[in-house]
Amino acid sequence: MGKHSPTAGWTVPATEALRVTSTGPIADFDPSSTPGFDGDKSAGAELLAERGEVLADLQELLYANGRTGDHRSVLLVLQGMDTAGKGGIVRHVGGLVDPQGLSIKGFGPPTPEEQQHDFLWRIHRALPPGGRIGIFDRSHYEDVLPVRVHNLVPQSQWEKRYELINKFERDLVAAGITIIKCCLVVSKAEQKERLTQRLERPDKHWKYNPGDIDERGFWDDYLEAYQAIFDRCDNANAPWFLIPSDRKWFARLAVCELLIAALEGLGLDWPKADFDVQVEKERVAALDV
Amino acid sequence: MGKHSPTAGWTVPATEALRVTSTGPIADFDPSSTPGFDGDKSAGAELLAERGEVLADLQELLYANGRTGDHRSVLLVLQGMDTAGKGGIVRHVGGLVDPQGLSIKGFGPPTPEEQQHDFLWRIHRALPPGGRIGIFDRSHYEDVLPVRVHNLVPQSQWEKRYELINKFERDLVAAGITIIKCCLVVSKAEQKERLTQRLERPDKHWKYNPGDIDERGFWDDYLEAYQAIFDRCDNANAPWFLIPSDRKWFARLAVCELLIAALEGLGLDWPKADFDVQVEKERVAALDV
Repeated sequence: MGKHSPTAGWTVPATEALRVTSTGPIADFDPSSTPGFDGDKSAGAELLAERGEVLADLQELLYANGRTGDHRSVLLVLQGMDTAGKGGIVRHVGGLVDPQGLSIKGFGPPTPEEQQHDFLWRIHRALPPGGRIGIFDRSHYEDVLPVRVHNLVPQSQWEKRYELINKFERDLVAAGITIIKCCLVVSKAEQKERLTQRLERPDKHWKYNPGDIDERGFWDDYLEAYQAIFDRCDNANAPWFLIPSDRKWFARLAVCELLIAALEGLGLDWPKADFDVQVEKERVAALDV
Repeated sequence: MGKHSPTAGWTVPATEALRVTSTGPIADFDPSSTPGFDGDKSAGAELLAERGEVLADLQELLYANGRTGDHRSVLLVLQGMDTAGKGGIVRHVGGLVDPQGLSIKGFGPPTPEEQQHDFLWRIHRALPPGGRIGIFDRSHYEDVLPVRVHNLVPQSQWEKRYELINKFERDLVAAGITIIKCCLVVSKAEQKERLTQRLERPDKHWKYNPGDIDERGFWDDYLEAYQAIFDRCDNANAPWFLIPSDRKWFARLAVCELLIAALEGLGLDWPKADFDVQVEKERVAALDV
């Protein structure tokens, strides 16, 4: 597929280098770093093109298995501060594979209907079907991030959610869903730069939300709320990764690599034919045109 | 964006050259032709790369408008004989745009739940939300194609569906959905070749369905059923196009062009800011880092 070894540039696998157990606290994390990777932007872009083909092949393999009765799927959960680039990851990493094989869901503030249910109801409904790669742009973690920062529900209520989330995710894993959770981390300086850009270009105004500046005022509270989900909801079955996102090329490469690792972990083969191949070859050969 | 004029290679716009009112009867149609286009495969591939960027920009514009309250959307309906390449169009034309902006739905035989409703129920539920490009891999037309060919319901029942479909589509157009209907046409010789390939490669076995050969036995009945939908369900608001699909490069280019025309027809502009840009610029400039 490519001329490099599949991990060219990676001195430590992304699954290790970016795991929250390796990166240290988010408050001390450098969003412009490239943990585990010693290449530059052009090496990263070149590697992403190659690894994108690997990802596309694995996605097709997953899809093929899904079409023939395998219920397993992969779920990529994206969280991160405003402007961290969640949408860009959906576009540029999701865009590497067949869109038929994706199940993309964004979560905003709960609708009136969603508010009539527990916080995991809408999440459960949006889970990827067998054979798909699901991508959540925000997720159930919103219910312990802005909800915690602003005490949108009493602390006694959000405190219980960490364990509810762990139990929920254990059930999903048992049901065959491989979960990867990525927190995109952007620096305050880079966020300011991205907000400035959105205001400068009329074709970017629709992406600008004045509320983002209000939220930025709670930066340290968010760091604390993020650290709490890493401390309480990271485990081997549903790991959390910190994705430094000041450099978009690295964030894309890193998430691509994590998806590849998750798919490879399924140990998939092409589904066996449920028909007699020789008989069918003879039938096809006998067709007139 | 590109060095050519946007319609380089097209001597007649795809919207005219491929419309069923121009192509003549499907029974006489050449699936290896390239109506309206005088370039070869390499010119077509080069043009697709350029036009793909135009499509991606228009899709972002549609999405931006959808995010700011515009309810309009575009719906691409794909029909065609087995192996005609519906999935390849989803992958290679859908794959040109941000997957977040797509709403893809495949329709198989109705599920038990779907069977408890009228044939348009499941279609209605799958319509693209505002701002999205919906792609239907098969559609409500299945209910007058295999259903008609095999009389899965009595003729008195399927006969009524043409008018029901016209009324349904009129309502969708009135609600802001731009509809493009494409029938991918493959020759019997090319279908035999594609079936042969699927059997030769174990990584393609999952795409092979022995039933496809049985269906091929009804080829002329299908041509008749297709002609009926073109005769009875083609109109300016929800036009049918014949996409010659023996040459995959041309089918992709043609569908891309039809999508571009549909999106351009919406006359979209970037949404106006619903905030005071100058005030926000000052707020952002005052942020510390």
